Amino acid sequence: MKFHTEYLTFNTKKPREYIHITPQVEAAVAKSGVREGMVLVSAMHITAGVYVNDNESGLIHDIDEWLEQLAPFRKDYRHHQTGESNGDSHLKSMLVHHEVTLPITGGKLDLGPWQRVFYAEFDGQRAKRVILKVMGE
Amino acid sequence: MKFHTEYLTFNTKKPREYIHITPQVEAAVAKSGVREGMVLVSAMHITAGVYVNDNESGLIHDIDEWLEQLAPFRKDYRHHQTGESNGDSHLKSMLVHHEVTLPITGGKLDLGPWQRVFYAEFDGQRAKRVILKVMGE
Amino acid sequence: MKFHTEYLTFNTKKPREYIHITPQVEAAVAKSGVREGMVLVSAMHITAGVYVNDNESGLIHDIDEWLEQLAPFRKDYRHHQTGESNGDSHLKSMLVHHEVTLPITGGKLDLGPWQRVFYAEFDGQRAKRVILKVMGE
Repeated sequence: MKFHTEYLTFNTKKPREYIHITPQVEAAVAKSGVREGMVLVSAMHITAGVYVNDNESGLIHDIDEWLEQLAPFRKDYRHHQTGESNGDSHLKSMLVHHEVTLPITGGKLDLGPWQRVFYAEFDGQRAKRVILKVMGE
Repeated sequence: MKFHTEYLTFNTKKPREYIHITPQVEAAVAKSGVREGMVLVSAMHITAGVYVNDNESGLIHDIDEWLEQLAPFRKDYRHHQTGESNGDSHLKSMLVHHEVTLPITGGKLDLGPWQRVFYAEFDGQRAKRVILKVMGE
Repeated sequence: MKFHTEYLTFNTKKPREYIHITPQVEAAVAKSGVREGMVLVSAMHITAGVYVNDNESGLIHDIDEWLEQLAPFRKDYRHHQTGESNGDSHLKSMLVHHEVTLPITGGKLDLGPWQRVFYAEFDGQRAKRVILKVMGE
């Protein structure tokens, strides 16, 4: 059984950004030598997420607007009594979910034709990590 | 270590449908010969999802209405500037999430008494795929 | 290859509760002897969820209020024609998602500094189960 673990670090320029990371996940799968198995792609923070969808800038704009509607910035979150101001970032993270598990077949990510992996940053402008853990044979 | 991979194809009659696929997942687990492990059930499209919940027609109706409230059809999604009209299908897919990982114990899906696996189609009426990847011993 | 399976049981005092279960997951990983791999943490019910976020009481309060806004209790869910009254619990479960997969590196849960695992109960006051399945080497 083979395992391969990598950590990606992102430091976004804007508070919210959506970063296409399929190439990094593909590279980790290639390095692992795993032919059959899975790769776990997981944000290591509670104000970020990982998701699979389209790499189309209009849709990414729609996703960002939609997340702001469903989990809006507000001053009065109870969480802010700790001195934080990022309550909405936590809720956006929960909505998107913080990890995905992707199949590997024949040594490659076994995704559909339009499926792309994204790191979703909801409280950026500082170094934050994503773990890639490949597991299989 | 054992692996077993299958692809299911669905071509729904309606744009949105919720298809009970526990029997297909159980059959894949049985074919795999895996006694201990996991099965990844993942939509291969960005306008579909996979989830676990009740196989009760009233609830499925509620889920569909609720998804339309939270991620409604709208004409003015930015994504539609590409010529598409399915922006809401992408957002519904993100809400439901596109994959689940299910435990296998003693050669069987180790689900609770009411847990059933569903394929959620949000932009159907064409052939779309789901991957089942069983992994274990 | 090593596998270790445990079942946790919760019987909450309130209908909705958020229970911090990182210690139980860490204990299962330690017992398994797995140094490299993954652990699946999955609710075995369709009115509960498992998520990763902050162990901060204000945020947990915010999460609860937010879930009630997005998936509110209502009398008129179609599901209630079966005699049930917990339609909202099913929708909250879908929003939170019922399972997470967590990485194990060097014999330990490989989480970020603030990531904690929670069992989210949306229809409690009766015994309900969570499965922990550790898998690796």
